[in-house]
Amino acid sequence: MLSKNMIYQINNFSLDNQKLMLYETIFHNANGYIGIRSNFEEGYPDNYQSIRGAYINGFYDLTPVAQAENLYGLTHEKQTMLNIHDVQEIQLMVGGEKFSMFSGTVLKSMRRLDMKKGITERSVLWRSPQGKTVKIDITRMTSFALLPLFTIEYHVRSIDFSGEVKLRSSHIGKAMNYYSTNDPRVAGDHIQHLVPDEAFFADKNTSVILSHTLHSNLSVTTVVRNVLSRKSRIKNRLYENSAAQDFLLKLDKGEEVVLIKYAVFCDSIRYPDCRKKAQKIMNKATASPVKKWYYLQERYLKQFWDTGAVVIKGNEKLSNAITYGLYQLIQSVGKDPYSNVPAKGLSGEGYEGHYFWDTEMYVEPYFLLTHTEIARNLILYRYRTLKEARENARILGHGKGVLYPWRTITGKECSGYFPSGSAQYHINGDIAYSVINYYLVTRDLGFMADYGAEILFETARLWINIGSYYQGSFRICCVTGPDEYTCLVNNNYYTNVLAKHNLKWAAKIYDILKKNEKIAPVAEKIHITESEIQEFREASQHMYLPYNEKLDINPQDDSFLMKKKWPFSKNDFKEYPLLMHYHPLCLYRHQICKQADTVLAHFILEDEQKFSTMKHSFQYYEKITTHDSSLSSCIFCIMASRFGMSEKAYQYFGNSAELDLKNLQGNTKDGIHVANFGGVYMAVVFGFAGLRIKEDGFHLAPALPKEWKGYEFKLRNAGGLFDLMVTDKSVNIKVLSGIPQKIFVYNKPYLLKKSLQVPLRTGAVTE
Amino acid sequence: MLSKNMIYQINNFSLDNQKLMLYETIFHNANGYIGIRSNFEEGYPDNYQSIRGAYINGFYDLTPVAQAENLYGLTHEKQTMLNIHDVQEIQLMVGGEKFSMFSGTVLKSMRRLDMKKGITERSVLWRSPQGKTVKIDITRMTSFALLPLFTIEYHVRSIDFSGEVKLRSSHIGKAMNYYSTNDPRVAGDHIQHLVPDEAFFADKNTSVILSHTLHSNLSVTTVVRNVLSRKSRIKNRLYENSAAQDFLLKLDKGEEVVLIKYAVFCDSIRYPDCRKKAQKIMNKATASPVKKWYYLQERYLKQFWDTGAVVIKGNEKLSNAITYGLYQLIQSVGKDPYSNVPAKGLSGEGYEGHYFWDTEMYVEPYFLLTHTEIARNLILYRYRTLKEARENARILGHGKGVLYPWRTITGKECSGYFPSGSAQYHINGDIAYSVINYYLVTRDLGFMADYGAEILFETARLWINIGSYYQGSFRICCVTGPDEYTCLVNNNYYTNVLAKHNLKWAAKIYDILKKNEKIAPVAEKIHITESEIQEFREASQHMYLPYNEKLDINPQDDSFLMKKKWPFSKNDFKEYPLLMHYHPLCLYRHQICKQADTVLAHFILEDEQKFSTMKHSFQYYEKITTHDSSLSSCIFCIMASRFGMSEKAYQYFGNSAELDLKNLQGNTKDGIHVANFGGVYMAVVFGFAGLRIKEDGFHLAPALPKEWKGYEFKLRNAGGLFDLMVTDKSVNIKVLSGIPQKIFVYNKPYLLKKSLQVPLRTGAVTE
Repeated sequence: MLSKNMIYQINNFSLDNQKLMLYETIFHNANGYIGIRSNFEEGYPDNYQSIRGAYINGFYDLTPVAQAENLYGLTHEKQTMLNIHDVQEIQLMVGGEKFSMFSGTVLKSMRRLDMKKGITERSVLWRSPQGKTVKIDITRMTSFALLPLFTIEYHVRSIDFSGEVKLRSSHIGKAMNYYSTNDPRVAGDHIQHLVPDEAFFADKNTSVILSHTLHSNLSVTTVVRNVLSRKSRIKNRLYENSAAQDFLLKLDKGEEVVLIKYAVFCDSIRYPDCRKKAQKIMNKATASPVKKWYYLQERYLKQFWDTGAVVIKGNEKLSNAITYGLYQLIQSVGKDPYSNVPAKGLSGEGYEGHYFWDTEMYVEPYFLLTHTEIARNLILYRYRTLKEARENARILGHGKGVLYPWRTITGKECSGYFPSGSAQYHINGDIAYSVINYYLVTRDLGFMADYGAEILFETARLWINIGSYYQGSFRICCVTGPDEYTCLVNNNYYTNVLAKHNLKWAAKIYDILKKNEKIAPVAEKIHITESEIQEFREASQHMYLPYNEKLDINPQDDSFLMKKKWPFSKNDFKEYPLLMHYHPLCLYRHQICKQADTVLAHFILEDEQKFSTMKHSFQYYEKITTHDSSLSSCIFCIMASRFGMSEKAYQYFGNSAELDLKNLQGNTKDGIHVANFGGVYMAVVFGFAGLRIKEDGFHLAPALPKEWKGYEFKLRNAGGLFDLMVTDKSVNIKVLSGIPQKIFVYNKPYLLKKSLQVPLRTGAVTE
Repeated sequence: MLSKNMIYQINNFSLDNQKLMLYETIFHNANGYIGIRSNFEEGYPDNYQSIRGAYINGFYDLTPVAQAENLYGLTHEKQTMLNIHDVQEIQLMVGGEKFSMFSGTVLKSMRRLDMKKGITERSVLWRSPQGKTVKIDITRMTSFALLPLFTIEYHVRSIDFSGEVKLRSSHIGKAMNYYSTNDPRVAGDHIQHLVPDEAFFADKNTSVILSHTLHSNLSVTTVVRNVLSRKSRIKNRLYENSAAQDFLLKLDKGEEVVLIKYAVFCDSIRYPDCRKKAQKIMNKATASPVKKWYYLQERYLKQFWDTGAVVIKGNEKLSNAITYGLYQLIQSVGKDPYSNVPAKGLSGEGYEGHYFWDTEMYVEPYFLLTHTEIARNLILYRYRTLKEARENARILGHGKGVLYPWRTITGKECSGYFPSGSAQYHINGDIAYSVINYYLVTRDLGFMADYGAEILFETARLWINIGSYYQGSFRICCVTGPDEYTCLVNNNYYTNVLAKHNLKWAAKIYDILKKNEKIAPVAEKIHITESEIQEFREASQHMYLPYNEKLDINPQDDSFLMKKKWPFSKNDFKEYPLLMHYHPLCLYRHQICKQADTVLAHFILEDEQKFSTMKHSFQYYEKITTHDSSLSSCIFCIMASRFGMSEKAYQYFGNSAELDLKNLQGNTKDGIHVANFGGVYMAVVFGFAGLRIKEDGFHLAPALPKEWKGYEFKLRNAGGLFDLMVTDKSVNIKVLSGIPQKIFVYNKPYLLKKSLQVPLRTGAVTE
């Protein structure tokens, strides 16, 4: 249960194995650089499963990708995010008795995530089998102020005994990625990717472990330093690939001892001399008391929430769920150009730490509208990997342009099954769309000249290369749209409309930069010519967008409507997701959608179609969409809201908001669904508040779900910041900073200077 | 060089490693049950590569199929044909010198395939390093009369010395499949699939080895018996998994010794008690002198050639190439319902001994028209595997009907990459087409009632299940046609027209069997109803066949013409086959064909289209077909001939006829291209002679390439046999047996009683 003061807390929590695995994810600590799953320091019984994990964003090894038939250009190697040295372990001995949640009696227990402070806590009142009672309070933090730093503050208080207590703090070099015999995706993959090179004590209280990766030629250093609040007998133990410190002391009744365990993670991607650097950073970390880091953590989050909070009035549960989601976004997002947003954040090993289109279409909008510098960094990651995208395009047979990989860490394609992987060329359009949106929100011409334009031009080139004219229209054959239940089709509406947008804006940005005398460097760098720009313009103007007049809808692709509808009524199956129960050929052959595809296109580029076409399309696709992807419901929520179907919108919203907290897809143990959290934000801002980012400014069309009393959030625009508060009566905009700008509310333009109040729209939604 | 008396011979052959590998294939011995590559008995130098192989048709182990992503229903296990115990080895010691082609001096050498006698020979006049000269003559045979029998007759004659000679005849249990680090397709597959259980001497001259397979629960026994023409000192040697016999004797100048090595292969699929049975068969084999088996071999082949020969007058080279090809067909074709025709026959390990559509569309026509009982057996193989095809259909999501596997030994799908594997649903139509042709040639209603109808009904059911009506037409979505450069398309012309044929004939055969009171057993067995038959009829009548009026062609599929044409002129690549140099997505996106697709459909079902449409289609597709498949040229030959383009036809014919003898595709070392040999036959019979098998009888339209003086072959029809001889003046048909039947020559009907002469057509070909 979340509380108003940004706390998600469970009391006297269950020790059921499945629940514990879920909580390992839910209560994980991350800061975009490192992520630590919330495992019990002291471990679990032998028959318990636990995914004990520590991860570094963008740190990977290479593993082979098996291919049944060795066709040209298929992926034979992928990157996989690695589980790093274990720094979590702390064993407590009370006399001769070892503390465990599974022995003795747990009199009281509590776990808590404090999103204001940026810490997790576990508190246990435990009575040992022999009747000694201790209170254990543990606070964990991954620092936003010092990204390589993870801390555990471990309190032990004797309630009713006096006697010997031993604390053992371990630092373990051997780490393996999670392996499950039930999950054939990783079955053959049980390889020790991280090979320890050295474990030693740098000084009395500081252990260092260095390891290298098996294939990727990377290395990582972790440093652990233990600081005890009291004098104790200390015994250092060094094993082959690990180190441990034993602290022995006597505790009187009512007395407390506190161990502060600092751990620093440095990888060789960011820190080429990570061996030295990690020790330096450790010295910095321990130069001040831990409280300083707590203070900086809270300060960082205060700034984050100040701009980034979303408050729902009248529904605390949902409000808190949104808060939880936004907190996961800031925990997950990479803060340097070496990293991006793994699909499961840094909370688990699902999708192997890979970055997908999820970033641009689901996560980036939040940062763009609240913490623009993070959005900028996400674009810089794509800019940095243009080279790999260029190579990828060549592999796929394109002489010009770039093709971004469907899933990746380093920028190289990791997708092994291309029909629903590399064939999703829309990734290029998604990235271009995010660059265009960045421009529309920031109007930052310098950024476009330095970075954005090159991405736009190179992605636009690919559309020219892949497409061709047929009967006067520009067509794109043999790609896969977002809906992975329909693969390798011609003129996927989503892909084509994004390509159109990409081409149009490539030409437009060219003109703008030219006018501002900023075009020369990029034009020279990639040899872009006026005639190429003219090709972009023409292809955009002649882009073929499938339309069915009779139904007044946009078919998902050229042949979608010809296919059989999925026999929902005939087969009384409850076998979702369908992909787990039907051969791809069977799915591809039917009118059945895994997720929003055309509906998503209508959301992001609504001016390409009539209102009626979008509405009819929504109604058409809604009947045949299973939402087997977690990226779907939020989009249907946004579009339901667009059409004034407020109850439907609210229902879709509910499905998304508590996806992980309620483990609705059953796999949160493998990590949080980051994109869905972004989607929940979008459902509020683009859905209920009706925001659209357009060339002429922000457009708002707020609606208020009848279950709510109001909602409020802030938005950045053109360097400014304004607050939007919707009540049951009015839409209230207050400018917090920035110059006056044009804004549309319910399609009516206003010049936003200091504040604006517009009555809340009631009644039917129109075009 | 082949000679008129059916001999393919090379004198003083090269010892180049690549050539030797090629000859291992070219001179292999096989009888449809066993196949032995023509390796040197005495072996090769260490640095030479050799694919030393003995295979049993249909004998396999199971091996895992790696999949990059574990989608539902993908193939995770395949069958692979195994290399069996080595029975070829014979070592000759002349005094202390070991005979080798690579030491001393080869004064003369010769290799020969005698297709009349059914034997291969190697003859070597060899002078040892110390100057002793021996003549070695080796004859090898896989018996058509006793399928498990392989013999080596090994003559050694002293030319110029007297002294000790030792022959060692080995029998080696350890056998591995071929492994090449250059061929990633088998790279991970270097597993010993065949595990020797026992090796022993059953009697003085007879060794026995038993092995079992690692995963498929099969076993195999080989028995070797050595018979020497002279007295000698014999020493039997038994090793862990092998046995050997040493024969020591003295040879005077001019004297000869002959070793006859009998080897018997029995597998547990055909011979559940193969241990005993193999020894029994050995006793039978050695009960008569080897000359008896030579006699029976020649007799078998006399019967084979009597009906099956094709003679080209005026071009001995091509005539011989055809003869070589037909000999490979009888060597390759399975003679029992446990086996079929491996794509490489029993001559090598390419395609792992799998059976494809090659059988029905390229190989079976020859047997149907010459040795009908073998064609019948090939259909029985498909009948026997209906159960597996039914299971396969369920995996692919079809509640009814069967779907034959794209590649298989046991009937279970072995194709790992479904877009150009399992998605080739036309395999169902191909098999149905062959059943229909079997009926049209034999008019054997009993066979249809017992076997054929069930195949037709079950395959027809699948079309109903996969297809659906759209705008009044019956359509089939998301399949792949024969052209593997265009995958997962809608309404592939080839597939649809075959489905139409299949559905039509399922209904027709139902009616015929019903009229003849033979329908009840099969109808009851698979619960086929009149209303289902009516569905077949209607779907057939309403089958959608793509047609483009402007071009007057049948597009290969719905979207084929919209795609870009392959940039032949732009890229000056000589990179064939394209599949080795371009990503599948790149190929799929272009108008580019690996092989005949629509052109093949027009050949087999010409009455579905206008003459002009077929001709225009031929011209259209010819420009964009690379013939990267060995199954393509022969079909283009047939259709070029159909349109009177005789020079073009002749050119295509030449490309096909010498494919293996000249190693035109560079991979004959991995085995012969069996389907191509069938295609060469088809090029003569369906191409130049213009045969079409239709409901109203045989249609002929002979043409004579200007390079030829004439050609002649025999055809079976309705239980009869007739001879067709084409000269530069006339078409001469002579009935050899059978009742009078209707025949069409140049579209004119005749009643063929005893003989018929029609002037050879000259001038333009018309509809």
